[in-house]
Amino acid sequence: MALRRVAIDTWRENVAYLHRDCAVYRAEGFQALSKIEVRANGRRILATVNVVDDPAIVGCQELGLSEDAFAQLGVDNGHTVSVAQAEPPESMGALFRKIASERLTREDFGAIVRDIADHRYSKIELTAFVVACHRSELDREEVFFLTDAMVASGRRLDWHEPLVVDKHCIGGIPGNRTTMLVVPIVAAHGMLCPKTSSRAITSPAGTADTMEVLAKVELPLAQLADIVREHRGCLAWGGTAHLSPADDVLISVERPLSIDSAGQMVASILSKKVAAGATHLVLDIPIGPTAKVRSMPDAQRLRRLFEYVARRMGLSLDVVITDGRQPVGNGVGPVLEARDVMRVLQNDPRAPDDLRQKALRLAGRLIECDPDVRGGDGYAIARDILDSGRALARMNAIIAAQGSTGFDHNHPALGALTLDVVAPASGVVAGIDNYQIARVARLAGAPKVPGAGVDLMHKLGDTVAAGDLLYRVHASYPADLEFARHACERDSGYRLGTADEVPRVFVEF
Amino acid sequence: MALRRVAIDTWRENVAYLHRDCAVYRAEGFQALSKIEVRANGRRILATVNVVDDPAIVGCQELGLSEDAFAQLGVDNGHTVSVAQAEPPESMGALFRKIASERLTREDFGAIVRDIADHRYSKIELTAFVVACHRSELDREEVFFLTDAMVASGRRLDWHEPLVVDKHCIGGIPGNRTTMLVVPIVAAHGMLCPKTSSRAITSPAGTADTMEVLAKVELPLAQLADIVREHRGCLAWGGTAHLSPADDVLISVERPLSIDSAGQMVASILSKKVAAGATHLVLDIPIGPTAKVRSMPDAQRLRRLFEYVARRMGLSLDVVITDGRQPVGNGVGPVLEARDVMRVLQNDPRAPDDLRQKALRLAGRLIECDPDVRGGDGYAIARDILDSGRALARMNAIIAAQGSTGFDHNHPALGALTLDVVAPASGVVAGIDNYQIARVARLAGAPKVPGAGVDLMHKLGDTVAAGDLLYRVHASYPADLEFARHACERDSGYRLGTADEVPRVFVEF
Repeated sequence: MALRRVAIDTWRENVAYLHRDCAVYRAEGFQALSKIEVRANGRRILATVNVVDDPAIVGCQELGLSEDAFAQLGVDNGHTVSVAQAEPPESMGALFRKIASERLTREDFGAIVRDIADHRYSKIELTAFVVACHRSELDREEVFFLTDAMVASGRRLDWHEPLVVDKHCIGGIPGNRTTMLVVPIVAAHGMLCPKTSSRAITSPAGTADTMEVLAKVELPLAQLADIVREHRGCLAWGGTAHLSPADDVLISVERPLSIDSAGQMVASILSKKVAAGATHLVLDIPIGPTAKVRSMPDAQRLRRLFEYVARRMGLSLDVVITDGRQPVGNGVGPVLEARDVMRVLQNDPRAPDDLRQKALRLAGRLIECDPDVRGGDGYAIARDILDSGRALARMNAIIAAQGSTGFDHNHPALGALTLDVVAPASGVVAGIDNYQIARVARLAGAPKVPGAGVDLMHKLGDTVAAGDLLYRVHASYPADLEFARHACERDSGYRLGTADEVPRVFVEF
Repeated sequence: MALRRVAIDTWRENVAYLHRDCAVYRAEGFQALSKIEVRANGRRILATVNVVDDPAIVGCQELGLSEDAFAQLGVDNGHTVSVAQAEPPESMGALFRKIASERLTREDFGAIVRDIADHRYSKIELTAFVVACHRSELDREEVFFLTDAMVASGRRLDWHEPLVVDKHCIGGIPGNRTTMLVVPIVAAHGMLCPKTSSRAITSPAGTADTMEVLAKVELPLAQLADIVREHRGCLAWGGTAHLSPADDVLISVERPLSIDSAGQMVASILSKKVAAGATHLVLDIPIGPTAKVRSMPDAQRLRRLFEYVARRMGLSLDVVITDGRQPVGNGVGPVLEARDVMRVLQNDPRAPDDLRQKALRLAGRLIECDPDVRGGDGYAIARDILDSGRALARMNAIIAAQGSTGFDHNHPALGALTLDVVAPASGVVAGIDNYQIARVARLAGAPKVPGAGVDLMHKLGDTVAAGDLLYRVHASYPADLEFARHACERDSGYRLGTADEVPRVFVEF
């Protein structure tokens, strides 16, 4: 059959389009949703069949492939391909045992993760795996097996240095863009920090989205390596590096189910870090009433699981439990967050102090991984690097190396349509809902529209008068602004009260 | 936006095709795989977004819908439609609680099943529900809640008679076409038996596929009701009747995962029967080494669950545990099975006796639901109806009413390509693998190619000589025959041994 690219993006699910009257479809007893194997040039991929009745999409002699699948097969339009009913994935037995609540072996996890990374699992099989693992609460050794298998499923970078540092936050706090400060600080200290980040999945901005306001982030791995060698750091999107690819596939199922079980979170984060070649990791677990983790006992339990698996993986891990009661910084959305980051780097008086302080503390912890630094000295070293302008210089070098966009933090390209949300009465800001602020920013268009988002004017503990501006929403499209307005009217995300009502958390910083 | 039918069959998953540059896609922050709500003319459906880059499939001003989704929305090509981000299904909270192993209430099951029947669940959410229910082994009251909710999710027929009989087999035994004998027998006895059946899902023929060899089976419900009133029975496909529609959706996920948990089987079968208006049901549970149920304790456990739920649903249930060691009858595949059925009805000496006996016993049990029949007399009454030709006459009347195809059992239209599978040595047939025989018949083309299948010449306990014909495979296409040959060569499905090696089962019949 002749291959045909069908310009449909089915997002991580390979779809093959076969005409209903095509001989292969009839002869092989394929059905809609059958899994088939498509071969060409010695390569093969798996795809799910959609049956087509319109020869304008695919003809009887053609096999259509969705965009991703077409790219994976890697041959040209019109190339001859052969198809066959796909054998069920090798690991189905292990999957069925997990569904039946059995504990799995290292080999089982290896086989399952390999099949997932090779796109041999359908959405249905993937979901079954995720739900089964979630429900049986993988024991900590199983989490290690899963993590290890996920690292093995993709590329593993080796920087040939004894100390490769990284930082990560488990997420959930809008505006929390410390990575873009920590990387230039520790790189300026001379530590190797080859940071790859993700784009937003459910949040209004990921580090990659925000960095993209300043510089190119989709870089070939070879160029990335050159930049890291020259500048000791980078701030790039991790999607091209093929690190722990099974993780990306699993996330596509976990997200819509809001499944965020501890085991899967630990495996996801640590597998990416180990695959990226990190030797030392500082991990930020924020707690607060609207953070992912809401109590100290939960945070401690999660910390212990991270520490166990990190130790088995040979990764040196330093967990810090931080204040997650409200967004960090003022801006929420790619351009607004980039503005905050650049203001901190430039020691601009308008820079949000909470973002600066959190970044300095995290950078300080990473700097203390340096055997030549005394415990307790990290913070001061980080502050000195930032105040002296060396962090800014390093950031500018990294931006230039990746390809600058010429961003000017004094004139950020914000969405021109605005909506002001004001205090309905006077009082003290006693609560800011991370979820609702993120939701408003997303409805306003972030991260797809980089200049969209929310600019916070007051934070927890601030005293406001009726009519004072709490935050300003920026959007570029009227429909987006209306969606955001609707959400704000239902719930602004701000709660006013008395100073006593501000929730307290007892954290390191 | 203008609606456009995209001629792609995505099998029970509604897909909306949006061009990447379409304003709505950009403004609303849809992503590939977002769920959207499509509205037109006061109707609304949910669909999953696939992003299209080819204006020949959908243009920037258009919204494409896959075939099923287009039919569900029920408006014409070019009709104006509006779209919005879908609200998450109401029952997500209950789903998440089931994932977390909680016991659910009647209201929870009601909300979940309603959302499933309305196609508000994605494949991922569906799978999560199925796996979560499977793993937590629904308790028997939960199975009742699920069954009841499934009945409520669709149409419920009421025949306005005190006695409406039905029969059902849990499946897994090729050739087991007793329904097509039981219906005319009990209808000839005067009982109301409005039988709707399914098409094959994983088997080489369902009752609807086999009946279709003889008559039309896709009939509008009003016509079906007329036939039932006139002839006291029918043999139709149930797909058009909208009975327990959530069941069809759940099956689309259970099948690829080979999940066949007792709770889901009971809810699936009983919901269909109650929705079809049955008051009395005879249920056939075959046991044997390659049947779905392999031991008597398993069969008894399943029987008790069926009985509990049937009682709560107000359905009178008679469970019979039968011999499932091998296929029933000789033919496997629509035409071959239709031939066997007609031979039994015509008292043809070539009629397979096992099929005749099993049908008579099942019909006898149903006839004993008649308050005027003494316990133990059913079999003799059924035999009399069959031997006298009254069953044949009734079947011919039903066939004529539904629309006869003019099938002649003396000249069945079998696939012209054949393959003879012979005994490799002499011995006694000591095992016939139901799964392998079904597999060979499917590879040969059944049920899609009605004349394809397997014709068994010897059954368990028969003595054969080397070279004797065990079975003949029929196919219509060379590729199909090659697939079947390949499977037969690996494993013919027959095991030869001594008379002592024939497995024994202790069943009612």
